[in-house]
Amino acid sequence: MTRITVIPGDGIGPEVTEQALLVLGAFGLGLELDVLDHVNAGTFLETGVALSEVDLKRITGSAGTLLGAVGDPRAAGTRYARDVLLRLRFELDLYVNYRPVRLLDARLSPLRRAGRREIDCAIVRENTEGLYADIGGALRSRTEAEVAIDTEVTTHLGVRRVIDYAMSAASRAVCMVDKSNAVPNGGRVWQRLWRAACAERPDLETTHLYVDVAAMRLVQDPTQFEVIVTNNSYGDILSDLAAELAGGLGTAASVNLNPGTGFGLYEPVHGSAPDIAGTDTANPIGAVLSAALLLDRLGHRDEAAAVRAATDRAVADGRCTADIGGSLGTRAAGEAIRDLLA
Amino acid sequence: MTRITVIPGDGIGPEVTEQALLVLGAFGLGLELDVLDHVNAGTFLETGVALSEVDLKRITGSAGTLLGAVGDPRAAGTRYARDVLLRLRFELDLYVNYRPVRLLDARLSPLRRAGRREIDCAIVRENTEGLYADIGGALRSRTEAEVAIDTEVTTHLGVRRVIDYAMSAASRAVCMVDKSNAVPNGGRVWQRLWRAACAERPDLETTHLYVDVAAMRLVQDPTQFEVIVTNNSYGDILSDLAAELAGGLGTAASVNLNPGTGFGLYEPVHGSAPDIAGTDTANPIGAVLSAALLLDRLGHRDEAAAVRAATDRAVADGRCTADIGGSLGTRAAGEAIRDLLA
Ligand SMILES: CC(C)[C@H](C(=O)O)[C@@H](O)C(=O)O
Ligand SMILES: CC(C)[C@H](C(=O)O)[C@@H](O)C(=O)O
Repeated sequence: MTRITVIPGDGIGPEVTEQALLVLGAFGLGLELDVLDHVNAGTFLETGVALSEVDLKRITGSAGTLLGAVGDPRAAGTRYARDVLLRLRFELDLYVNYRPVRLLDARLSPLRRAGRREIDCAIVRENTEGLYADIGGALRSRTEAEVAIDTEVTTHLGVRRVIDYAMSAASRAVCMVDKSNAVPNGGRVWQRLWRAACAERPDLETTHLYVDVAAMRLVQDPTQFEVIVTNNSYGDILSDLAAELAGGLGTAASVNLNPGTGFGLYEPVHGSAPDIAGTDTANPIGAVLSAALLLDRLGHRDEAAAVRAATDRAVADGRCTADIGGSLGTRAAGEAIRDLLA
Repeated sequence: MTRITVIPGDGIGPEVTEQALLVLGAFGLGLELDVLDHVNAGTFLETGVALSEVDLKRITGSAGTLLGAVGDPRAAGTRYARDVLLRLRFELDLYVNYRPVRLLDARLSPLRRAGRREIDCAIVRENTEGLYADIGGALRSRTEAEVAIDTEVTTHLGVRRVIDYAMSAASRAVCMVDKSNAVPNGGRVWQRLWRAACAERPDLETTHLYVDVAAMRLVQDPTQFEVIVTNNSYGDILSDLAAELAGGLGTAASVNLNPGTGFGLYEPVHGSAPDIAGTDTANPIGAVLSAALLLDRLGHRDEAAAVRAATDRAVADGRCTADIGGSLGTRAAGEAIRDLLA
């Protein structure tokens, strides 16, 4: 039996995860669900540790992890996010953050043009280095003479493998985004490895943009992109931006992946939204489509396609939550998708 | 006589600068124009130095500098941008990059909602530290074991003064944007000084967003912001994004300012656009509105207001370039604005 670990997490995390699990359950694939209910901000605030070594073993021994959301205002300013989400990304070497962006229905786009459901791209975000390296410190902390340092680390290994993944995930076009005109050292690594990778893939249309221009071009016309590959920090920003252009963060799915081992941590792009937690209003689609990415990875491609088709249908019929124009609650929106599974 | 230095620069820079100067000239304010024609990529590529010590003296001794655009594909991968634009920002300690964003006409917004000309905000970008510090290097360069480092430097001085400027520039609301949940050391400085500044200005509505969420919220509804204050890198990205949401980069103005000395480097937010250079198609409005910021700073507030009103009018009448829905060339679009100066 395939064992899947589940971290419902904080805020709306448990609610959206419940719907994702119900959708998975509809297929009778015999997945064993190993739920880590205690990995959340409550545990962190009580014990100082959100994720124990035992938890980590359960996770790494499983076929993948579904995560709801991690984040709690009571833990602001602590290392909580780093100790759960960023720790899993770094320690399990989940070096690809794959964030597909698809307009589920033309009316969801906030853009005047770009109606016709043509937004269908993916951000491939480097997920294990860059500004997230957590290397740095501060001198004369808390004084008027304070100097703080955060180090952006860029390695040949890190850049090469994420560019390779991006190229393998594209059928038509890849755009590399950096800021090599202002941030020179990492920029040179991205530029050099990008040129090498382009030379190996003459079949793909390859382009380069500076990050400020990329943000602009996404707004001008998101349909011009297929795969965007970029560093950890720019990937964070551009994936939220692209998701919003495609109808809202509530529907955006992602996987933190190690393509070598095949292990993935699947999570909606949205956060824990503590303000609406427990009100049955959160959009379950980000979590449901993240579960579809897990199905893909487990080889259940037909089931994954069925989930996506049912989701599109539910949205087209307006059987969805208020953030995307429906009037259903979280549970009813999940039920609508299950109803529509062929 | 007030002496203004002028750097037309590269690509479309000279064309848009010409229109900005003609608009300034319409007022007969007796400004002395000191044009540094040779500060461009050609000079850099020929001599290795774009900006000499003599140039620098002419600039610092003037009341302000109008810059067209800096950038040339032949100089890609060189230190050209750093040696001109970034050098002026750093050496003249122009620590505020002030980028007002205003929707000139409802039909220019790419957003379905947010029609009614309500986008009117400003990005206040820290301009002298952060990831642009140019501190770093690489180990085992050009090998498969390469590790490159770029250092994001955040100081009490740098953060405090830019937050102070942002607060002084706001009448209603300031939003501070950082990524303190993932980039902790600089994040702590921003958070601490932000809280201190908020406590001193209870009259302002003060909010905080992580940069990924800020990008999303700008798309959701840019009219919710008045002043956004953020670091060098996020300011670069968010100001291009906001400008695009308000009708396009062609109309966006900026000033790199030292509020202490009052010296400013005024430049359109757009780049040198080498692909359309010399074709009389570039939008002169970014440069013209940058000149209006200079008029403001020189105390000619009525003239600055007149330039803005004439620009709005020209755009409303469709007497503008093709990028914003008109059919005029650069020169004719500049002439339209001059015609409409009361
Ligand atoms: C040319 C480049 C280095 C510059 C920057 O990133 O600051 C530009 O994008 C800008 O925003 O003025
Ligand atoms: C919670 C935060 C540290 C995280 C990130 O920046 O990676 C989140 O925004 C994301 O994109 O998954």
